[in-house]
Amino acid sequence: MASAVSHLSSEYHDLNGDHIDVLEQPPTALEFSRLVHISRPVLIRGMQIPSVQFWDDEYLAATLGETEISVAVTPNGRADAVTQSPDGKLYFVEPHVESMKMSELLSKLSPEAGDPNIYYLQSQNGNVYSSRFFEGVHDPSEFELLRHDIPSEIPWCSEGLGKSPDAVNLWIGSIHSVTSIHTDPYENIYTVVRGSKHFTLLPPTDGWCLKGATVTAALDYPLMHFLERMYPHGTWTRKSPEEPLTLMPSPNVPPIRWSSVADPDLPGNLPPEAHPIQITIDAGETLYLPPGWWHHVRQSDNTIALNWWYDMEMRGMSWVFLSFLRKCWGRSIWER
Amino acid sequence: MASAVSHLSSEYHDLNGDHIDVLEQPPTALEFSRLVHISRPVLIRGMQIPSVQFWDDEYLAATLGETEISVAVTPNGRADAVTQSPDGKLYFVEPHVESMKMSELLSKLSPEAGDPNIYYLQSQNGNVYSSRFFEGVHDPSEFELLRHDIPSEIPWCSEGLGKSPDAVNLWIGSIHSVTSIHTDPYENIYTVVRGSKHFTLLPPTDGWCLKGATVTAALDYPLMHFLERMYPHGTWTRKSPEEPLTLMPSPNVPPIRWSSVADPDLPGNLPPEAHPIQITIDAGETLYLPPGWWHHVRQSDNTIALNWWYDMEMRGMSWVFLSFLRKCWGRSIWER
Repeated sequence: MASAVSHLSSEYHDLNGDHIDVLEQPPTALEFSRLVHISRPVLIRGMQIPSVQFWDDEYLAATLGETEISVAVTPNGRADAVTQSPDGKLYFVEPHVESMKMSELLSKLSPEAGDPNIYYLQSQNGNVYSSRFFEGVHDPSEFELLRHDIPSEIPWCSEGLGKSPDAVNLWIGSIHSVTSIHTDPYENIYTVVRGSKHFTLLPPTDGWCLKGATVTAALDYPLMHFLERMYPHGTWTRKSPEEPLTLMPSPNVPPIRWSSVADPDLPGNLPPEAHPIQITIDAGETLYLPPGWWHHVRQSDNTIALNWWYDMEMRGMSWVFLSFLRKCWGRSIWER
Repeated sequence: MASAVSHLSSEYHDLNGDHIDVLEQPPTALEFSRLVHISRPVLIRGMQIPSVQFWDDEYLAATLGETEISVAVTPNGRADAVTQSPDGKLYFVEPHVESMKMSELLSKLSPEAGDPNIYYLQSQNGNVYSSRFFEGVHDPSEFELLRHDIPSEIPWCSEGLGKSPDAVNLWIGSIHSVTSIHTDPYENIYTVVRGSKHFTLLPPTDGWCLKGATVTAALDYPLMHFLERMYPHGTWTRKSPEEPLTLMPSPNVPPIRWSSVADPDLPGNLPPEAHPIQITIDAGETLYLPPGWWHHVRQSDNTIALNWWYDMEMRGMSWVFLSFLRKCWGRSIWER
């Protein structure tokens, strides 16, 4: 199995290389539909959202005013990531979530803030528009007062896929926030409004890549180290904003399957057979990120981004194949 | 490997069932592009090619007149199929090809012809339009005099895929002609003009199905029986139209990889885990057959059909995955 899947990975790379299409204008619906079938990342320029070009700190703080928004707080900038607790055990740790005004978040992100913790607006539950919005029912949002600036749909994407988004999210963070490597079962249109996002991407066929070890030497299962492993769940917690955050295990939450590769950009953390692609999305640019692509995300400066998640096509082969590629290296398939 | 691939096959079937979409009108280019991404067969009604509705025998014979056309001749109706020679050995046998006028072919197809052999117009090399035609260079065709009746492109398909066909073929045969199960790396638009075609279809994930044996009992390789095996090459031959056809081995032609399942419609020839879909395409109907789908084709009555082959998308995952599914059960991957 290992040899067959690493063979698949190398064939995929032989055929596609590290190529990423760059479009100087957004695609038509039909062009986008063809890109969805190819299912490779595309850098798209020229997607104009005029309203968000005027988003400076003053405007954002004034527009949201007294509205309380949910912000992830961690001591290390790694929300939703594998973290070692003081006793040496590894946990999948969710951030502490604090409510604050936009003006407070923006001051926390200032290099002069003097706060030891890292604040990241990444509520990502459709924090601007959720699926309820598209179903036409009441959809409260912490960012309701910003909605007039944020289109609920990307026309060429909605028409190309023949559906509305499942979630639209606003992301605001600093250079200290990192999103650990993972995949989503969504077609993702990711637009940077301010700053830059640095994506490290791996194709779905590279899911077999082990942490710091070459899989080709390990042709037999059970494999001791998967890219994804089960981790016990924990949460960063504090009783008051003055206290330090502590990692609290959550014994009643089931373990989470998550990548063991903390930083794919560090030498030796991926096997030499892996095929990472690094791409920077600057303000005004958009990334089309297809479902199943592994992505690790860093930011330069304070960065504001928007993304539109559309459900991937579940009919046909795509989902089954992505699931197959993940299961090949998890336990589930072997335990049946 | 066997368990993983049969698991994939069963997951694919759990998700998609035996469902085939039926469209009462041809899709738009964008709708077709979405169907290509789903990559499941679709029955399409209402695709009008007015000129071919007037194709009776008299018209076809008169239009082509003295033109010599290439017709496959076999004693068993199985051109390009695995056949047992008198010495008991199995060969992949190509048909004898004879030149004749259309009027002669049509009289051979008559039930009263009294000829023991089976005649099938299936030259399938782009016999109406080949890739040269679409490259704008000279493209001689035995059916040049019929071209004014046969559109070179299917507009919604060409626009949906963003390319012209690679080959357009005319097929004329009787109830005795059978096309043995195989796959093509093409997007296939297959229109029946007269009669009916009966397709038995298997998804690409069912390539593991063995002849009359359940693979689930055979979890280890080397597997002794593949759906596809290597067969020595042979040709049906005769020196004159009066002689009987004999199977002549072709020692200088490399062996051919071909399916070992002669007739997937006979009970026991496919394992119980296989998921064949049977669909009849009647005159005036069109089948969209995606690349990689296994198909076995029979006909009712004398049948005339046209098909447009478009190159499949080679970028991305589709081709790599189809190749992976075939290699899993061939020798090549294990011999590396």
